Amino acid sequence: KTYSIAVIPGDGIGPEVTDGALTVLAAAQRTFGFSLDFTDYDAGAQHYLRTGNLWSADLAQQLRTHDAILFGAMGDPAVEPGILERGFILAMRQAFEQAVNLRPVKLYPGVETPIAGLTPERCDLVIVRENTEGAYVGQGSTIHANTPNAVAIQESVNTRQGITRVVEYAFKLAASRRKKLTLCHKKNILIEAGKLWQEVVDQVGSRYPQVQLDYVHVDAMCFHLPVSPERFDVVVTDNLFGDIITDLGAVIQGGLGVAASANLNLDGSAPSMFEAIHGSAPDIAGKGWANPVGAILSAAMLLAHLGEEQAALAIEAAAVGVLQKLPALAGPDMLMSTEQIADAVAELVTTN
Amino acid sequence: KTYSIAVIPGDGIGPEVTDGALTVLAAAQRTFGFSLDFTDYDAGAQHYLRTGNLWSADLAQQLRTHDAILFGAMGDPAVEPGILERGFILAMRQAFEQAVNLRPVKLYPGVETPIAGLTPERCDLVIVRENTEGAYVGQGSTIHANTPNAVAIQESVNTRQGITRVVEYAFKLAASRRKKLTLCHKKNILIEAGKLWQEVVDQVGSRYPQVQLDYVHVDAMCFHLPVSPERFDVVVTDNLFGDIITDLGAVIQGGLGVAASANLNLDGSAPSMFEAIHGSAPDIAGKGWANPVGAILSAAMLLAHLGEEQAALAIEAAAVGVLQKLPALAGPDMLMSTEQIADAVAELVTTN
Ligand SMILES: CC(C)[C@H](C(=O)O)[C@@H](O)C(=O)O
Ligand SMILES: CC(C)[C@H](C(=O)O)[C@@H](O)C(=O)O
Repeated sequence: KTYSIAVIPGDGIGPEVTDGALTVLAAAQRTFGFSLDFTDYDAGAQHYLRTGNLWSADLAQQLRTHDAILFGAMGDPAVEPGILERGFILAMRQAFEQAVNLRPVKLYPGVETPIAGLTPERCDLVIVRENTEGAYVGQGSTIHANTPNAVAIQESVNTRQGITRVVEYAFKLAASRRKKLTLCHKKNILIEAGKLWQEVVDQVGSRYPQVQLDYVHVDAMCFHLPVSPERFDVVVTDNLFGDIITDLGAVIQGGLGVAASANLNLDGSAPSMFEAIHGSAPDIAGKGWANPVGAILSAAMLLAHLGEEQAALAIEAAAVGVLQKLPALAGPDMLMSTEQIADAVAELVTTN
Repeated sequence: KTYSIAVIPGDGIGPEVTDGALTVLAAAQRTFGFSLDFTDYDAGAQHYLRTGNLWSADLAQQLRTHDAILFGAMGDPAVEPGILERGFILAMRQAFEQAVNLRPVKLYPGVETPIAGLTPERCDLVIVRENTEGAYVGQGSTIHANTPNAVAIQESVNTRQGITRVVEYAFKLAASRRKKLTLCHKKNILIEAGKLWQEVVDQVGSRYPQVQLDYVHVDAMCFHLPVSPERFDVVVTDNLFGDIITDLGAVIQGGLGVAASANLNLDGSAPSMFEAIHGSAPDIAGKGWANPVGAILSAAMLLAHLGEEQAALAIEAAAVGVLQKLPALAGPDMLMSTEQIADAVAELVTTN
């Protein structure tokens, strides 16, 4: 079986960590008997500065021909904040209806977490973030701008249809795991949006009697997540709260270096996109210091999405194997480079 | 000098921790030569269930006659979530134009933090949260409700005037501290609101050249705050983001038990309100287990607000002194009760 993968390395450390993920994917295809056909796409800050191009109908059409998209990172100090985020990443999430942003929060053995006493057994949850609407619609207006009476109104738009597809996905996931679903919102304040979210969760939930339902305010989530992650199995939340609590999740699991994510199109109408949670980190670009594990685990999620579960599990296991060795290898002169880490994971994938 | 203080103990552990704070305030008045005149107000879940009353014009008029308000906590499983929050707490914040919600994030010596290796020297910041607008205006609407096409729109309303008073407060505070101000927002996505916030920060900042200015997205804040709190001195942010990141701040400083806050009216048009960050914790109410230190430190903020700086510092120092002893006294039979902790702080206030 052959899968066609679009690769968008992007900026900063994006290309380095993407290279690492490609090394591992290449090893997996040999071992697990499928083949991957990679097509590179030039996009991001450098591309934008050179050509003025961000997301476009033309690019969308080309990307649509692929089975999945592997994404590095975007961002550069030379480009105004927000341009690439809205002009490319959000544009893709919306154009390709990548309705779910799936972010596992898993503390792997051997990874150092800043949370005192936290153990891997206590930290294995998944955050299901709505990925196309809410505050991310970017709707709003400012009246009396440039006067002392300026009023900026920012809207969050939440549709039953948009919420439902995400909530259904979350219930299915919870049913396949520890059977616990937590809605994270701020329904005591954001009453309109909160009511619709809770309504959908209750409705869909009636079809999943085996899944235990819980509700936690987003502020309380920030309180509980670091100290009692074992309380959570699947957390479903809106776009903005998801953005916020998944960064907190990344802290808990030991940093952005290992955090992976999937932007999932659920109806097969367009490709899904897989990216490490970290950004382009221009300050360390080109030094070979970037941790490729987030990108590698995102590549594993890509394979799982394509149905290559075994290969995905093997990559995750191999990454865990290498992560366990990392602390012992740490220190100014003994750090493994981005490439060495990727090679070590690839090696484990083929030999395990 | 005599100050008139309104006391609203509220529900759950509210009355217990408020009693603790009153013990300490009583000790402080003897020692520091001012006198406090307390008037109790019955409000909260029990009061609401009995009388149907929440915030009212009548109550507001009575409360206005006092110099400050000491608030316990509100909430009870028998009252639908949101009723007391919106019907009382938010109503007061808005009616009394308590424009700033001030929340110090300070790790006190002897307090156990869940963040590995964090030391008190590295954790001393203040979050200045806008307290009357943003998403907390509760504006929004749902169209096609109860149909498959329901759309819930939730608005965040941000006025230049509202932002400006908070930002000016934050700059003044930063100028009196380590001279660093960080704006926390998500301006790359919430473009209208983010633009106005950044504009005001830049404008006011031009009058504070000595204060170094920084900007951090709210998601990145969740990433940095737990592991590098030393990066922050004063953080200014909107109502919703402030709600979220101050709970994270409370985790870092060792839990809700020690986190204090002030809801400040800045122009003297109405009393300010002081409350521990924790809720009513009905599950442990009446057991004498609640930690009164958050309430006690809130009472210290009340005195500082009234101009009794020395007494405020003495209470903070006394609370720190007792906190340092707490771990040694911990254990099933050796925990100090709410009352014992308050008595110990009061004793230190009078003897130091
Ligand atoms: C880059 C940015 C638009 C993005 C977001 O806010 O969603 C990022 O923070 C993320 O979480 O993927
Ligand atoms: C009780 C609730 C309305 C309140 C808020 O959301 O502001 C609380 O969480 C807080 O932070 O003071």
